[in-house]
Amino acid sequence: MGNPSLEFGVSEKQGVYDAIYKRRDVRGQFLPNPIPEALLLKLLDAAHHSGSVGFMQPWSFIIVRSEQTKRRVKQLFEQANEAAAQVFEGQKRQLYSRLRLEGIMESPINVCFTCDRTRNGPHVLGRHTIAETDVYSTCCAVQTFWLAARAEGIGVGWVSVFEPEKLREVLGIPPHVVPVAYLCVGYVSEFATRPELETAGWQARLPLEDLIFYEQWGKKTSE
Amino acid sequence: MGNPSLEFGVSEKQGVYDAIYKRRDVRGQFLPNPIPEALLLKLLDAAHHSGSVGFMQPWSFIIVRSEQTKRRVKQLFEQANEAAAQVFEGQKRQLYSRLRLEGIMESPINVCFTCDRTRNGPHVLGRHTIAETDVYSTCCAVQTFWLAARAEGIGVGWVSVFEPEKLREVLGIPPHVVPVAYLCVGYVSEFATRPELETAGWQARLPLEDLIFYEQWGKKTSE
Repeated sequence: MGNPSLEFGVSEKQGVYDAIYKRRDVRGQFLPNPIPEALLLKLLDAAHHSGSVGFMQPWSFIIVRSEQTKRRVKQLFEQANEAAAQVFEGQKRQLYSRLRLEGIMESPINVCFTCDRTRNGPHVLGRHTIAETDVYSTCCAVQTFWLAARAEGIGVGWVSVFEPEKLREVLGIPPHVVPVAYLCVGYVSEFATRPELETAGWQARLPLEDLIFYEQWGKKTSE
Repeated sequence: MGNPSLEFGVSEKQGVYDAIYKRRDVRGQFLPNPIPEALLLKLLDAAHHSGSVGFMQPWSFIIVRSEQTKRRVKQLFEQANEAAAQVFEGQKRQLYSRLRLEGIMESPINVCFTCDRTRNGPHVLGRHTIAETDVYSTCCAVQTFWLAARAEGIGVGWVSVFEPEKLREVLGIPPHVVPVAYLCVGYVSEFATRPELETAGWQARLPLEDLIFYEQWGKKTSE
């Protein structure tokens, strides 16, 4: 046991696990209902309180609401998706073509999470040996946003099917900044009980015990 | 408003925000108290329920408890940290040398989060244009683990100061697997109210409004 006063109460703890287990990558269940600006800022402030290497806070958030911008992003998706579908064969390709992979137009807000690789100068504490820790930090912020959104009944879908260089053009993102995640954000009619790709038979959940090693890669027991 | 039944209750929602805002990158406050195996597995199962591109679940977790392995990792840190300190000058270097940057030996458990870049074959749904989405997913799992641990009163510190190739050697990680995050995990005497690098005057928190753009990079208003 640790210090019991540092542990959360039963309901608060349940909230954390509920956010984790009930979070979904939402594509097809978005409602058009607007998200209040204050609530969006609350979610972004939560994301901003993720940890970052050397307290670098390398993220910036581009909020997209205009139909025009969304349509351009949707076109990028369609271009890339056509090529992506070709790599799968037979039944897998048929299944792929039936899957819903984005809700760009239907979600009232899209948010692009970016990572400024030059923020706070050339030397960032903790980033000397692993330069990618800035991008890693930005991904942590994405997950934080996703979980906070779930608690608010807001769905988030991460779209990764487009050429990042073309997204950079559409959003005017400079070369030193990486567009890490493009998120569709909105209230939803429901959250599915399981990931859609699991339900659709695309991929099964891996057993946790297959993913755990002790002391060394490949060692399955702690003895 | 969305569907009120999908929104969390007051306490559950507070739990999510508490985990986010009270999470710390812990270095110096670890207690030696053991973490029950069942609780560690609960945290890893939570991490395993993070989203991943194409439901790829590319992560594996290496649990490190032996003094010998920890000591080897600590040596890697010391080697890299000496070099890292040299890039800072004057007062900043003095401050750097006073900062506590890891709790490898003091935390009862270290966990390495890895990403298998070949999991589920060469073609992963949603990863056609951005190959790094597997590593991004693994980072999301790190943040999930971090937040669940906070709810349990368990501290986590991410150590990124060592050569990843040398860590790979120590833990026997094969070439197709990336060691993404090396975490020190344990009960703590306290969680600091603010990030240590903020308190120490290393780096201030950036104002959220400086990090938000509308429609385009650099556009500060939604009009």
